[in-house]
Amino acid sequence: MSRIAYVNGRYIPHQMAGVHIEDRGYQFSDGVYEVIAVRGGRIVDLDPHFDRLEQSLAALQIRHPMARAALAVVVRETVRRNRVRDGMVYMQVSRGVAPRSHPFPRDAEPALVVTAKALADPPAEIIESGVRVITMPDIRWGRCDIKSVSLLPNILAKQAAAEAGAYEAWLLDSSGFVTEGSASNAWIVDTNGVLVTRDLTTAILGGITRAAILDACAKDGLQVVQRPFTPEDAKTGREAMITSTTSFVAPVVEIDGDSVGGSRPGPIFQQIRELYLTHIRQG
Amino acid sequence: MSRIAYVNGRYIPHQMAGVHIEDRGYQFSDGVYEVIAVRGGRIVDLDPHFDRLEQSLAALQIRHPMARAALAVVVRETVRRNRVRDGMVYMQVSRGVAPRSHPFPRDAEPALVVTAKALADPPAEIIESGVRVITMPDIRWGRCDIKSVSLLPNILAKQAAAEAGAYEAWLLDSSGFVTEGSASNAWIVDTNGVLVTRDLTTAILGGITRAAILDACAKDGLQVVQRPFTPEDAKTGREAMITSTTSFVAPVVEIDGDSVGGSRPGPIFQQIRELYLTHIRQG
Repeated sequence: MSRIAYVNGRYIPHQMAGVHIEDRGYQFSDGVYEVIAVRGGRIVDLDPHFDRLEQSLAALQIRHPMARAALAVVVRETVRRNRVRDGMVYMQVSRGVAPRSHPFPRDAEPALVVTAKALADPPAEIIESGVRVITMPDIRWGRCDIKSVSLLPNILAKQAAAEAGAYEAWLLDSSGFVTEGSASNAWIVDTNGVLVTRDLTTAILGGITRAAILDACAKDGLQVVQRPFTPEDAKTGREAMITSTTSFVAPVVEIDGDSVGGSRPGPIFQQIRELYLTHIRQG
Repeated sequence: MSRIAYVNGRYIPHQMAGVHIEDRGYQFSDGVYEVIAVRGGRIVDLDPHFDRLEQSLAALQIRHPMARAALAVVVRETVRRNRVRDGMVYMQVSRGVAPRSHPFPRDAEPALVVTAKALADPPAEIIESGVRVITMPDIRWGRCDIKSVSLLPNILAKQAAAEAGAYEAWLLDSSGFVTEGSASNAWIVDTNGVLVTRDLTTAILGGITRAAILDACAKDGLQVVQRPFTPEDAKTGREAMITSTTSFVAPVVEIDGDSVGGSRPGPIFQQIRELYLTHIRQG
């Protein structure tokens, strides 16, 4: 079966799916996106993803490409046409096509691309053995709370991690605190057994998985403190983990070559993983 | 006459010129670009632009789409097919098309887009009356020396300038020094009559117009100091100006509502403008 992409009002073969060279997403990274999990044919956390999409669009003053209900129809139809039961939806909205000039064009129609594809679960090895993380300076721009396609620093960080044989790169602010991963939020369990993840500012993206886990922890009576932490806090603490739409929850067992949590996934990770799997099953 | 664009090996009508939705330039801003002036049919500073393109590609480990000589042929042919005598060439190289995943794909072919269009000279009013500038925090990433398409902060700054009735936004680092404009380099003539522009670091892009002017100044015996300066230095100094491929040299007569250089273009600006016009005529 060949994949189908939704592009600006039409469902077309993925291979032929294109945007204009003067789409501002291409020339200026003037656009935003969402990645949404699909589990058992159900779209996970669609409303929170739409909420965040609207926040990103508002922050950049990009018009909505269509009403939320219509967008939900497009997302579901793209999932259906690609016969995705377990996988992900990718949606991108750019400011649209206009002759290249920095200021916002007056009359551009926002461009909308939606794709969907099947995706295997995160490998069992990750859950059982954990992943390695490296750290590097966070050189991203000052509005990482906007989920924009201006991702060049993120891919450079992820590439650096890959070259180091690591799964993710944790980015460090100028004070040495972890902001987040290149494509995930970062968590630790500190020396007192308290779960910690960085508070929401313009320095990090408010992950939907992060939010779902915070919610599930609150309901389950698991205390979470939202504050900055350092790689040293992670190494001296009991556990570390990352969360994202595609990784779910993954245990971190090594940071910059140093062992974390006895090099084994810990009990709080297991608890959070269960909470999150329950969440995406119940949706 | 309809415009022609070069896209990945083909010359096609501009209106139909597209790239794939999974071109990494679109999804990750994983690409670089150059804007080159065309004067009297001649391409201005082609070699320095190619040098910088190669530096940008090397910094991001993107392969060259083709040898320099072949790229020059494409640029000239695109100019010819669009019958541009005075205008500009835009060229963009991205890492290419690959299934969306942060790390560099192994086998992607770099994507190349080249367009050309006629462009009127900067309006006489700008030269005669000067332009207004606003200042705002520089929230860009840490590698502004790479001419990447990760331009979202730049367009937000330019838009803020436009909304304030200004021509450009000067960006201020955390110490209050001007880094550069959203799409230009910044210059002042200080209280001692010395021409000043910021030194090259990862905080600014090394403008080709900036380099040409530095070179022309050296030949003409005009002293230039490369160091950071503040908006206050500009306001208390004698003159201010900006340089870019499309603006050439433009005098700044107002910063954040305060008059600069008696609100009139000054003699050093006039001298530099003449030097630059001579440069692009002789090329």
